[in-house]
Amino acid sequence: MNSFGQKLKFSTFGESHGTALGCILDGLPAGLEIDEKYIQSELDRRKPGKSEFETARKEADKVEILSGVFEGKSTGTPIAMIIYNTNQKSKDYTNIKDVFRPGHADFTYFHKYGIRDYRGGGRSSARETAARVAAGAIAKLMLKELNIEVLSGLSQVAGLKSETCDYEFAKKSIIYSLDPNKEEEQKNLIKVAKENHDSVGGASRVLIKGAPVGLGQPLYYKLDAVLADAMMGINAVKAVEIGDGIMSASTLGSQNNDEIREDGFTTNHSGGILGGISNGDEIVMNVYFKPTPSIFKTQKTVTNTNEEVDFSLKGRHDPCVAIRGTIVCESMAALVIADMILLNMGSNMSGVTKYYN
Amino acid sequence: MNSFGQKLKFSTFGESHGTALGCILDGLPAGLEIDEKYIQSELDRRKPGKSEFETARKEADKVEILSGVFEGKSTGTPIAMIIYNTNQKSKDYTNIKDVFRPGHADFTYFHKYGIRDYRGGGRSSARETAARVAAGAIAKLMLKELNIEVLSGLSQVAGLKSETCDYEFAKKSIIYSLDPNKEEEQKNLIKVAKENHDSVGGASRVLIKGAPVGLGQPLYYKLDAVLADAMMGINAVKAVEIGDGIMSASTLGSQNNDEIREDGFTTNHSGGILGGISNGDEIVMNVYFKPTPSIFKTQKTVTNTNEEVDFSLKGRHDPCVAIRGTIVCESMAALVIADMILLNMGSNMSGVTKYYN
Amino acid sequence: MNSFGQKLKFSTFGESHGTALGCILDGLPAGLEIDEKYIQSELDRRKPGKSEFETARKEADKVEILSGVFEGKSTGTPIAMIIYNTNQKSKDYTNIKDVFRPGHADFTYFHKYGIRDYRGGGRSSARETAARVAAGAIAKLMLKELNIEVLSGLSQVAGLKSETCDYEFAKKSIIYSLDPNKEEEQKNLIKVAKENHDSVGGASRVLIKGAPVGLGQPLYYKLDAVLADAMMGINAVKAVEIGDGIMSASTLGSQNNDEIREDGFTTNHSGGILGGISNGDEIVMNVYFKPTPSIFKTQKTVTNTNEEVDFSLKGRHDPCVAIRGTIVCESMAALVIADMILLNMGSNMSGVTKYYN
Amino acid sequence: MNSFGQKLKFSTFGESHGTALGCILDGLPAGLEIDEKYIQSELDRRKPGKSEFETARKEADKVEILSGVFEGKSTGTPIAMIIYNTNQKSKDYTNIKDVFRPGHADFTYFHKYGIRDYRGGGRSSARETAARVAAGAIAKLMLKELNIEVLSGLSQVAGLKSETCDYEFAKKSIIYSLDPNKEEEQKNLIKVAKENHDSVGGASRVLIKGAPVGLGQPLYYKLDAVLADAMMGINAVKAVEIGDGIMSASTLGSQNNDEIREDGFTTNHSGGILGGISNGDEIVMNVYFKPTPSIFKTQKTVTNTNEEVDFSLKGRHDPCVAIRGTIVCESMAALVIADMILLNMGSNMSGVTKYYN
Repeated sequence: MNSFGQKLKFSTFGESHGTALGCILDGLPAGLEIDEKYIQSELDRRKPGKSEFETARKEADKVEILSGVFEGKSTGTPIAMIIYNTNQKSKDYTNIKDVFRPGHADFTYFHKYGIRDYRGGGRSSARETAARVAAGAIAKLMLKELNIEVLSGLSQVAGLKSETCDYEFAKKSIIYSLDPNKEEEQKNLIKVAKENHDSVGGASRVLIKGAPVGLGQPLYYKLDAVLADAMMGINAVKAVEIGDGIMSASTLGSQNNDEIREDGFTTNHSGGILGGISNGDEIVMNVYFKPTPSIFKTQKTVTNTNEEVDFSLKGRHDPCVAIRGTIVCESMAALVIADMILLNMGSNMSGVTKYYN
Repeated sequence: MNSFGQKLKFSTFGESHGTALGCILDGLPAGLEIDEKYIQSELDRRKPGKSEFETARKEADKVEILSGVFEGKSTGTPIAMIIYNTNQKSKDYTNIKDVFRPGHADFTYFHKYGIRDYRGGGRSSARETAARVAAGAIAKLMLKELNIEVLSGLSQVAGLKSETCDYEFAKKSIIYSLDPNKEEEQKNLIKVAKENHDSVGGASRVLIKGAPVGLGQPLYYKLDAVLADAMMGINAVKAVEIGDGIMSASTLGSQNNDEIREDGFTTNHSGGILGGISNGDEIVMNVYFKPTPSIFKTQKTVTNTNEEVDFSLKGRHDPCVAIRGTIVCESMAALVIADMILLNMGSNMSGVTKYYN
Repeated sequence: MNSFGQKLKFSTFGESHGTALGCILDGLPAGLEIDEKYIQSELDRRKPGKSEFETARKEADKVEILSGVFEGKSTGTPIAMIIYNTNQKSKDYTNIKDVFRPGHADFTYFHKYGIRDYRGGGRSSARETAARVAAGAIAKLMLKELNIEVLSGLSQVAGLKSETCDYEFAKKSIIYSLDPNKEEEQKNLIKVAKENHDSVGGASRVLIKGAPVGLGQPLYYKLDAVLADAMMGINAVKAVEIGDGIMSASTLGSQNNDEIREDGFTTNHSGGILGGISNGDEIVMNVYFKPTPSIFKTQKTVTNTNEEVDFSLKGRHDPCVAIRGTIVCESMAALVIADMILLNMGSNMSGVTKYYN
Repeated sequence: MNSFGQKLKFSTFGESHGTALGCILDGLPAGLEIDEKYIQSELDRRKPGKSEFETARKEADKVEILSGVFEGKSTGTPIAMIIYNTNQKSKDYTNIKDVFRPGHADFTYFHKYGIRDYRGGGRSSARETAARVAAGAIAKLMLKELNIEVLSGLSQVAGLKSETCDYEFAKKSIIYSLDPNKEEEQKNLIKVAKENHDSVGGASRVLIKGAPVGLGQPLYYKLDAVLADAMMGINAVKAVEIGDGIMSASTLGSQNNDEIREDGFTTNHSGGILGGISNGDEIVMNVYFKPTPSIFKTQKTVTNTNEEVDFSLKGRHDPCVAIRGTIVCESMAALVIADMILLNMGSNMSGVTKYYN
């Protein structure tokens, strides 16, 4: 239950304030060049403490490969990666030891397991997503060999939406904003929330370019369903849209259908997926994050023993999880596509025969 | 890839115009009374041809249990159910034999598999969802034993949203509308689209009452993620929201967090799920359907050999797939919850010891 | 739990005396010609009542394909197959309704599930293996395209072992004996046991020819491990050997290692598998069956309520399950190899690149 | 493919001469006391270099828990364990860089993956089994809570079989021999082989005491099938027997059936498993190991480029892998039983209702 993927599968471990976190990536084809610097650079995009728009907890998020790579190439065996925690301040959390933080998983973990590692949310902390980014970086290396690219950026901060989708700008923006004209205002919304001891929601947009036709296994491992699974499983995500998403529900069939010409689809309302299978067009989705539940305003809650208390959180937190969450969306999308690429092999006998001859 | 679920797993088979469709439901606990009339009554809710708001294809959707039930009770062995197709008119489809219908899976199936059962969309037809409803009915029988109820209704037709959520009304409404005051107008939107040889989108809302705290397996089989997977995998679905969903992205943490009192949560922005685990509150989600891609207006498309053609569809189609889709959402939600119930057993040693003593 | 395989997966359903049994075969590549007569001919090899060496229950075991095949070819969608039971005599079993037959699953099913379909053993009956043979026949059709052949025969009846392995003879032998010189004596052993109201054990040998190097996924889906799983899971099987098997334990490394020359291995003690991966040589295994537990001698047992009774079985039974079991071994082996063929695609990047270019 | 188990699942990583090896154990119930000293003591039983009967490579096999344990108890989250390699001498292996050692996985890994970590066999080395023992130790801690015990010992060295099954003696025997009267002779066989630059095969016997009735999920996750899978997947194993195993094939039904009395079975030919489900009796199996393929005698083989060579191995190797393999069998058996315990929860509605009330 701590694993994701069918043919390219990763399993993660680790808590926010434990010794280390990491993952095992299993099923990667042998012979792929593993560029460790690239993996680290991807982790650097997600790591905390890079700006005032993120938590003040500084973690180097230095990743080490323990297995599965020999002389710079993948060997087909599982690639284990480890990231030691270096800046955990568990005492920040002694005041939540017996209290359920509103909006957090404290309540549900405690009731499910009867025990809870309260330090920074333990396993439920978004810190675990560092492992997804490490695995996702390797997936991206594999996709690169097939000329597939995964891009992302912040499409919304609080109620303010990006109007353009400039993925190149997003790469450089400190908040990964997709819109050069909105970035300042978006930053400002975050700052104001932070000053008010509050947090804001936001949204990410993910774009996959170059995916071949045919990815996705109907009917219960559809590309869109698995992307939805992958995205909804990211901390704080509450909604996922493929292509036009919710807007589709308000349109007519004649508006929403993408017509087809010799050289492809004339529009892309579908977001590049038809019947759960990629259609060769760009794959597009939107992922919506709730505001960070960690806020400094006093809130009403109960203790482990169901006593009502007024609660004031301490510690260091992201005022807008969507920012760093964007990188996680991108990583998960890459992992899904790489998995689908491998699963798709063997879809028809001509492919099987070609492979074995 | 035609299976769903971990501990309670169902696998479906069958094409729109083949001999039969059906499913195997595996992992159901033994000793559950299997009320066949109830299963049939659930299928009757989804079956086509009940009103002018649905396709004119009439199918009795008579389900037969082939195995796994003995003297009226489940035996713990797989329950196979079969529904024979009785009203397929394959000749309706000879004109699409070599043409890709816009918005349909024709294009993607053909390119993935190199072969395509064009009759009614073959496997990609929503007709397959009858099997899901059959399996879902049994899941609901199991949930009933644990006092868990799954309800649903149409929350939107085209741009028109229901303002109330009257699930009792929805049960009786011919279009499963949740809003007695909007039902007429919603019906009208569908009629108009139909008269214009067009179709409309819509949305469903699903409510799960009585689910215990603790359902959902973090981190990669989270309750919300699996629900998203289940819903997005339904034909024509393009977006899924848990709780406040997209709205959450526009709020502040202080607005979105659900505070906790002795007797539970004071609000339910989260939709009953925190950290991927049910929190004991009502579980709520919204599911958005695109308009039926099958429309009678002339559309531009290409043939199997990539020749551009103007295409006019014939046949019988739902003007708004969201209507019958609602029942499918409800069924899938029931299957997910039942699976999670079984998976949750064994979460902690005290439960294990209790079970074995 | 009623499914087998990873990429080529089949799920079975049905009880000995229920309406029907069958299976869904999922993951078969599209475009394979499905020769229904061949499938039936394979079922005919396993079907009961063909000779005095088998149960007197006559079943036509007529298989019908319900889905997944269009115009004679697989479409990539699940192939459902159904076999209706026609000759069940449930009253044969009323005397075992409340009694646990020694050596049977009656005791364990009842205690696990609290309910038991006692008619012919219900789900635990070897009748279910008809579904495996149907699925296996399709696997063999796929393997044939890749020039891989799976053969089998009876290598032992009671204590009498075949000394030669003549698979062509086995095809024609009424008891599938591998040894023309032992067949008569083997038949006689069965006859004598039958006359004594008893039964005998036996063993099968399976040979896979033409499998490429590289099948098997280390470390926990090894080819030998999965074959062992597949064989041990067949009714009445109590031991599985790969290659020299048990004999290997009594040898020296210098005797057991297969040396390698330009044109391959000089010996085949390993049975064609090294490190869990096929080495290109013939894959060989032995499968050992206990005697049919259904005997007509009086036995001591208890009832559902734990009362001690003397028990005399009625009904129709195979005096030597290994005979028809041989065909099941062969079918399961074919399914494993076909699954491994598909899983192996994507093992290295050069293969992935080749597939997509 | 580097994972084992359904509900209690472990995934391993690491190569013989890489940085570290380890595993993630997922699905362990929360609240179990994790006795780290016990885990280490289990690893100490398997670790190399303890006597002249084992490889001279000394590894401390010091295990560290990285996650999933909080204040001495399991939290329900994945338990990652790591063992750093400390005594690898990669240069021992430069002479096999381009040569396939007979009897080893060198040939098959190279042909499957196109690349091979030749140092000590890389991933195919039995060194990986340290991770299984670590995971198995935790499984045993869980089983202890339910009064289930897993025992093992060496039942055969080369052709010499143990005649008694003294599991207490085996715990103290340096070669884990089950027979105090044969131990010396068994040791001697190993010594002689070693002196002759050769190796010997052997066998292990595993006993599971206290397992409840009902473990095993028919029909394709049967207890015996999964045990066979688990055992055959251990390095160098070539055969697995449940209960009387191969002997059963030579008996009559009247001899092999275990009769039942009020207080249980009168004999245990079945090895405690009927129809793939535990029957409450002792579960017994035998596991057969081929001789270590690593021998120092000159052997004929080929190189990566298929040139014929005479090959002389260097390095440090076990003269009889069955010795340390015994501990691995025991660990794998414990993992299977613990998994089955968890899977069995939910088999019938009365259990489900009991759990939730």
